[in-house]
Amino acid sequence: MKNDLLLRTLRKEKTERTPVWFMRQAGRYLPDYRVLREKYSFFERVRNPQLAAEITVMPVKQVGIDAAILFSDILVIAQALGMDVEMQEGKGPILPAPIRSQEQISKLDPARTEEVLAYAIPTTRAVKEALENEVPLIGFCGSPWTLLCYMVEGKGSKDFAKAKQFCYEHPELASLLLDKITEASITYLNMQIKAGVDTLQIFDSWGGLLSPSDYKRFSLPYLDKMVKAIQPQVPVILFAKGCWYALAELQSTGAAALGLDWTIHPSFARQVAGASVFQGNLDPIVLLGPRHHVEKETVAMMKAFGKGNYIANLGHGVLPQTPFENAKAFVDTVKNFRA
Amino acid sequence: MKNDLLLRTLRKEKTERTPVWFMRQAGRYLPDYRVLREKYSFFERVRNPQLAAEITVMPVKQVGIDAAILFSDILVIAQALGMDVEMQEGKGPILPAPIRSQEQISKLDPARTEEVLAYAIPTTRAVKEALENEVPLIGFCGSPWTLLCYMVEGKGSKDFAKAKQFCYEHPELASLLLDKITEASITYLNMQIKAGVDTLQIFDSWGGLLSPSDYKRFSLPYLDKMVKAIQPQVPVILFAKGCWYALAELQSTGAAALGLDWTIHPSFARQVAGASVFQGNLDPIVLLGPRHHVEKETVAMMKAFGKGNYIANLGHGVLPQTPFENAKAFVDTVKNFRA
Repeated sequence: MKNDLLLRTLRKEKTERTPVWFMRQAGRYLPDYRVLREKYSFFERVRNPQLAAEITVMPVKQVGIDAAILFSDILVIAQALGMDVEMQEGKGPILPAPIRSQEQISKLDPARTEEVLAYAIPTTRAVKEALENEVPLIGFCGSPWTLLCYMVEGKGSKDFAKAKQFCYEHPELASLLLDKITEASITYLNMQIKAGVDTLQIFDSWGGLLSPSDYKRFSLPYLDKMVKAIQPQVPVILFAKGCWYALAELQSTGAAALGLDWTIHPSFARQVAGASVFQGNLDPIVLLGPRHHVEKETVAMMKAFGKGNYIANLGHGVLPQTPFENAKAFVDTVKNFRA
Repeated sequence: MKNDLLLRTLRKEKTERTPVWFMRQAGRYLPDYRVLREKYSFFERVRNPQLAAEITVMPVKQVGIDAAILFSDILVIAQALGMDVEMQEGKGPILPAPIRSQEQISKLDPARTEEVLAYAIPTTRAVKEALENEVPLIGFCGSPWTLLCYMVEGKGSKDFAKAKQFCYEHPELASLLLDKITEASITYLNMQIKAGVDTLQIFDSWGGLLSPSDYKRFSLPYLDKMVKAIQPQVPVILFAKGCWYALAELQSTGAAALGLDWTIHPSFARQVAGASVFQGNLDPIVLLGPRHHVEKETVAMMKAFGKGNYIANLGHGVLPQTPFENAKAFVDTVKNFRA
């Protein structure tokens, strides 16, 4: 591979500079992506190998990013289990028949994952081919807890009150549901590995809504199971947004790297999970500000993380309204940084 | 005062048991409040002394809470400065002319605060009278940063991207705006003190959206100024949601107590700001679950905080859909708890 900065960093090897990529880098801030978005539905873009390849490679070619991340969505696991998912452009996902009963859970079938998500194999292979061994390919999925949030709530939410309420009322059903999601997710990650991804990121986007004790109950054990199933094959990056209080436990899963949101100062992360590789953590809204501010804050981030065991990224997904030039300025600033 | 548990705790005196109140306790989970909500507009309820008194006292009488909190809203400071605020029931606030320019900021006049918010004096006095010296009265306002969020964004938001973008593009205007909000807020808190509140809480509801360095720039200095102006008169409780990373700095303001959200385990708070009185921090969504779970989690919270220097509360405002009986179970569990 021509540029394996990310993979060497995940192995804690010395590198000539810090690798950089960012969450949602194959997305709406790219004018060429917006053109494809007008022509094809979300799941057409995910399932068609040529489209997925074109979209996944776009930020590598246009922004000069050090890794590609497969174009897809965490909710494909809800589909794998038999649920309908509607992607309303600009409005977020809708699951018209949210899970509320034992009967619904008993119908969810993780054994169908390979069949329902069969497209992931040719799609991932097409992406790998289009990358021409330039940079590594990151596969991904959501955490079981984050999937439960959407599957029970039925849509995005600021607090996922219905999902949490379900867990408090029916902890044994929540556990059953989380087990099924975990099983489907491991199958799906293994499919991605088989098709050639070089590393995998697990997104616990809504972990930070939980108290530390609920996190240990409803999220951590399932993440732990996933990391232990996958990590022997490819390095795993765990990104648990808002989970500053569980960094040490997340490190204990054995994950190769921990993603950090922008509230976590690197000095705190080093203090509680110092031996880990960290990834992050510029506030994506900084990229909406003036260029000189983007550059200043990116340099401050690079200085704070220091040299080695570090992957530059945003602290959450890049926003659709981000000016392309600012996304590029972020990447260029990382690449030009010398400690 | 018959029940001064809260005030003695704020002075770090020993008490026979832990005091309990909760944020938004005078709100929609109370059936009698919902009746008044049908009859009167939000600002009628805030400005009419009899209505404000009835609403403020309601949870003390009906739920047996150890302190009342003045019925009002943090956005009255935007009104004090000359902005229109529309409260759309169930939809949150709308500020139809959000701040985006120097010209708009120059028109905001903190000197008119006493005139625009004149109703606060008779209203607060009516509340004090209705309380008949049973329990202390908590006054409140928002933090300057949280007010800026609404005044620039023009409405609630999950990330307040426009507000942050404004601060990054125009840091000098942000500073000017924050100064004006701070001035109006201090005037307003002094009015509340004059009218008889026993303690004051400052809500930094959106502080947790900021990175630690942005928090030190856009929120902390203004909170510090407010605490130093007020604390010599009445004890100040600082509740900065999501600001786990700034607990030590928040303590350094000299505030009598720090409010904690449910992601902060008491052991972490004691570690970084141990000498402080803490307030919190049950996840409000726990109150949507079954009664036995409410009781179990409340007992776990009481045990984790330990005896003394502690005020039991939720980690954020009580949700409108909370069953009344669960709110009562929370309060009763605190009151019956013996370490």
